[in-house]
Amino acid sequence: MDNQKKYSIIIDAMGGDYAPGEIIKGAVRAAKKINVKIILAGNKEKINRFASLNELDISDFELINSTDEIKMDDSPSNVIKHKKNSSIYIGTNIVSKLSNSAFLSAGNTGAVMACSLFNLKRIEGILRPAIAIVIPLAEKKVVLIDGGANVDIKPIYLKQFAIMGKIYCESIFGVNNPRIGLINVGIENKKGSEVVVKGYNLLEESNINFIGNIEGRDIFEGKADLVVCDGFVGNVILKSFEGMSKLFFTEIKNVLTTNIITKLYAIGLKKYFINMKKKFDYEEYGGALLLGVDGIVIISHGSSKSKAITNAIKIAADSIERNIVKRIKEEIIG
Amino acid sequence: MDNQKKYSIIIDAMGGDYAPGEIIKGAVRAAKKINVKIILAGNKEKINRFASLNELDISDFELINSTDEIKMDDSPSNVIKHKKNSSIYIGTNIVSKLSNSAFLSAGNTGAVMACSLFNLKRIEGILRPAIAIVIPLAEKKVVLIDGGANVDIKPIYLKQFAIMGKIYCESIFGVNNPRIGLINVGIENKKGSEVVVKGYNLLEESNINFIGNIEGRDIFEGKADLVVCDGFVGNVILKSFEGMSKLFFTEIKNVLTTNIITKLYAIGLKKYFINMKKKFDYEEYGGALLLGVDGIVIISHGSSKSKAITNAIKIAADSIERNIVKRIKEEIIG
Repeated sequence: MDNQKKYSIIIDAMGGDYAPGEIIKGAVRAAKKINVKIILAGNKEKINRFASLNELDISDFELINSTDEIKMDDSPSNVIKHKKNSSIYIGTNIVSKLSNSAFLSAGNTGAVMACSLFNLKRIEGILRPAIAIVIPLAEKKVVLIDGGANVDIKPIYLKQFAIMGKIYCESIFGVNNPRIGLINVGIENKKGSEVVVKGYNLLEESNINFIGNIEGRDIFEGKADLVVCDGFVGNVILKSFEGMSKLFFTEIKNVLTTNIITKLYAIGLKKYFINMKKKFDYEEYGGALLLGVDGIVIISHGSSKSKAITNAIKIAADSIERNIVKRIKEEIIG
Repeated sequence: MDNQKKYSIIIDAMGGDYAPGEIIKGAVRAAKKINVKIILAGNKEKINRFASLNELDISDFELINSTDEIKMDDSPSNVIKHKKNSSIYIGTNIVSKLSNSAFLSAGNTGAVMACSLFNLKRIEGILRPAIAIVIPLAEKKVVLIDGGANVDIKPIYLKQFAIMGKIYCESIFGVNNPRIGLINVGIENKKGSEVVVKGYNLLEESNINFIGNIEGRDIFEGKADLVVCDGFVGNVILKSFEGMSKLFFTEIKNVLTTNIITKLYAIGLKKYFINMKKKFDYEEYGGALLLGVDGIVIISHGSSKSKAITNAIKIAADSIERNIVKRIKEEIIG
């Protein structure tokens, strides 16, 4: 049976706040929906125990045992040097050798990036891999690159981020010729930090649909399909969005529980607010892509539950299907 | 009568999207509430015409005529060189000569900063002035510094921002020994860009209540009273907050207007949601302080209406009252 499956998704069963339980559940659900071979990298005993206790059928999965455990505060270099028997090291290593495969982890992001770079290498011509991530904004969605891989950058990186992000938008979301905006403190072309001003010029010369600088508020108005920034700014935006979102929904809850009357209204409104919440739910997209390495790597949020993992597996399969890596190679090398 | 007024607030009547109308209205309301002398800098004719058309009594105000107009895209250096007869240049110049005074503008931020630096000069020892601004977060409020004055920074600036921000928190909000967080991509002390890692060390050595790195989401959980970052990151956070906030309230409106039933509920809930919106309203604070120049300068949002201006005038008066400039001098020079 496995031979008929075109794609292999290697999953870090040990990474994330809810591993291995939610990871396994997400993989089982994905396997029912899409025709992929699932390879779980992790502590075999724990995986088997969880599956049997929860009556999950993982008989079609391949299990690869890992013995080293990666903690959230493990330094990337330590993982490369001393934890070659970890699920992340093993998983990225398999992807480097197996065609039509992808690796997925909700674990230590730094370790995933380091192992990916070490085992998969950069695509020739790419200076720095970057994280492309979807921000769900009600009816719209926006892709942001870089979500946190590069905190210190050079102008040329911004150009490469834009090109990789463009391929992502086109391949995964079917947005043709996406509108690309550069995050800045103002819309005038001479505004911003030195790096960003120079990046602006490079983007303007590029063969992309560059719409110029955009400000923080423009992201949420959907002015661009793809927003480009360094990994420091990107990370702050993503986490701020998470924090703001949480705060807003807490406040809505406070309004609806003010008194007995509002509580009655709340019963009637509940389903609509749940629907609203869903429109801002990153779990619908499941994971970010580490673009620029010579293989497909999906980084899921540390607090991913099974739904996010299932959706991330879909993105992994789509990324293989649409030949994202090959397309980046063609665009970069030309 | 004027002689009895301890403080003079010089207001740029021409700056902002709703100038001069909303600016004048805000000043008139403030003058009724607090004992300050109002000096309006701007086109005298326009100011008088608006006041008489709207039956606003500005007979107690001093008017100083300006003839140069500053556009939103005027470069700061152009203003300094060629627009010495603009409301912003005139206003900052008066503050430099008049004791117990403050300048307030909702106009071109770059021009306000340039004219402030030129006319007021930096406080001795301060390397770069920075913008301190309040983010209203429901029950909490957080001060952020730098809100956009410095897009390229050095580690030592972060330390000075923290010290100035601390004085702001203590003087204006009465928060003693505020918890100060450094915005970063992770909480570990070795995370982040080169500048931020070095800034961390300087903050740790300082005599302040430094709680370490904080992430985007922590801002909105109120983990710190004061958040410190460069002006690029700060500007993106503030504008993202604005955009997100707008998007969320639009979505709430969409929920409440889904159908006839939800519209009925909406009638009962309206006042609570208006109250919620107020809790996120920057107009309650009215303006940001440009800290580090040798005088008090308040920068209001370009879209400020009269309420914001009134509140900004209060902050201006408080800043004079609490001797913010003197306190910064003492802390920096020691």
